[in-house]
Amino acid sequence: MDRPLILVSNDDGYRARGVHELTRLLSEYGDVVAICPEGPQSGKSMAITVSEPLRITPVDDYKDTEPGVEWYHVNGTPTDCIKLAMHTVMHDRRPTLVCTGINHGSNASVNELYSGTMGAAFEGCTCGIPAVGFSLCDHSLSADFSTMLPYIRRVVEMILRHGLPEGVCLNVNAPKGGHIAGMRLTRACRGHWSDEYTRQTDPHGRPIYWLTGTFINEEPDNPDTDDALLAQGFVTVVPTMPERSAAASLLPEWLEQLNVSH
Amino acid sequence: MDRPLILVSNDDGYRARGVHELTRLLSEYGDVVAICPEGPQSGKSMAITVSEPLRITPVDDYKDTEPGVEWYHVNGTPTDCIKLAMHTVMHDRRPTLVCTGINHGSNASVNELYSGTMGAAFEGCTCGIPAVGFSLCDHSLSADFSTMLPYIRRVVEMILRHGLPEGVCLNVNAPKGGHIAGMRLTRACRGHWSDEYTRQTDPHGRPIYWLTGTFINEEPDNPDTDDALLAQGFVTVVPTMPERSAAASLLPEWLEQLNVSH
Repeated sequence: MDRPLILVSNDDGYRARGVHELTRLLSEYGDVVAICPEGPQSGKSMAITVSEPLRITPVDDYKDTEPGVEWYHVNGTPTDCIKLAMHTVMHDRRPTLVCTGINHGSNASVNELYSGTMGAAFEGCTCGIPAVGFSLCDHSLSADFSTMLPYIRRVVEMILRHGLPEGVCLNVNAPKGGHIAGMRLTRACRGHWSDEYTRQTDPHGRPIYWLTGTFINEEPDNPDTDDALLAQGFVTVVPTMPERSAAASLLPEWLEQLNVSH
Repeated sequence: MDRPLILVSNDDGYRARGVHELTRLLSEYGDVVAICPEGPQSGKSMAITVSEPLRITPVDDYKDTEPGVEWYHVNGTPTDCIKLAMHTVMHDRRPTLVCTGINHGSNASVNELYSGTMGAAFEGCTCGIPAVGFSLCDHSLSADFSTMLPYIRRVVEMILRHGLPEGVCLNVNAPKGGHIAGMRLTRACRGHWSDEYTRQTDPHGRPIYWLTGTFINEEPDNPDTDDALLAQGFVTVVPTMPERSAAASLLPEWLEQLNVSH
């Protein structure tokens, strides 16, 4: 069997610790090409750069510490990274797998909507490639990624063996360091962010707003959501579909009245 | 009954023609608050601004042409506009409806993934408010929005009467000006963009890449997708769910093997 070819990206930028944890692990399983944003691109969702030119630049910094990993950075979003990779350095070799992360911070529940790390995974999935995003619920610079690594191995090994159904990718989140209780297949918790902004006044006396806020779990009595399982110490795996058309069974009859002909 | 309160945003910026077509129409149905990006924000998906301060600024330019419409611009993305609106000018009055657009260009099929206009509608939906995004498949400055307006009226009237199911919003696209054949409830066409970048060389001899590309319909024989119906002259209405957890019925059994306990 050919050695797997694994395309890696993230949203914290090519220097972030999390992505190097991931590339080192993945290089045991296959040839790794890593294409990450030049700098932090958190919260970029599936944003693409439409009116500025993109550049893709080889990175030499990790030749010694990650021999065999091909490293690039791109002056754009995580989704730009995947798109431009497919058009340039990957144009004559199709990845077996797209892995993104390890994100510094949770992408559980509604965070998935805004996540650049998941955006890059969705883009891989949209290209028809099995894709998975990995996140650790810890923003600190000294975050301990080690307890998550055995679970990443398990997910990667299973996907390399079985593939994933067309249109489905995985959103994998791990609780902050320490003992992990196990891993659970689940779904995204219903929730929202409350009190989202902190108001300050700039030196000219004008109000400015910084994104902050508190996550509100809208189903706090349900122990089987990703948010609840993470709180119980589990790594969570949420199968997720980039394509969002609603199933007909969810729709009210009156919508049919929108059908008109002339 | 109270007069509806309608929150409007877009991704082409507050000066774009399309959003003013929309605010003028909607002011016949209710009180309109429009909060749009300062400038073009196409392709921003659900991106949010996480590390820079946001400002929301009242706009006086349309006092005479759109009396009664409250206008603001924000130095951020379309999703920032909805979030910051809910936190500031809307914090003590809940919108009846969120409308976004009219976008200059198609948001059918996979375009929805990247659309800032749909990102803002998804954010409204995530807040639990009925939401709809409107787009015209014409990028030209002289685009004719008039043929689409009766269909926007019909959609708005129906949502004001019936609401929308929780978690479902609408993605409405209209074909380029001229005769419209009618309106159809449908789903997003499977497709992708091909040859996505045009390579040029900058004055310093370095390669740069511009997003371009051609849309490939992956189900060209299906006459009932949004892409096919637009080509037949119909306005398309795609019920769409921001939340993306995959239905269990779509998942292979092997995924259960990811469940482990320690």
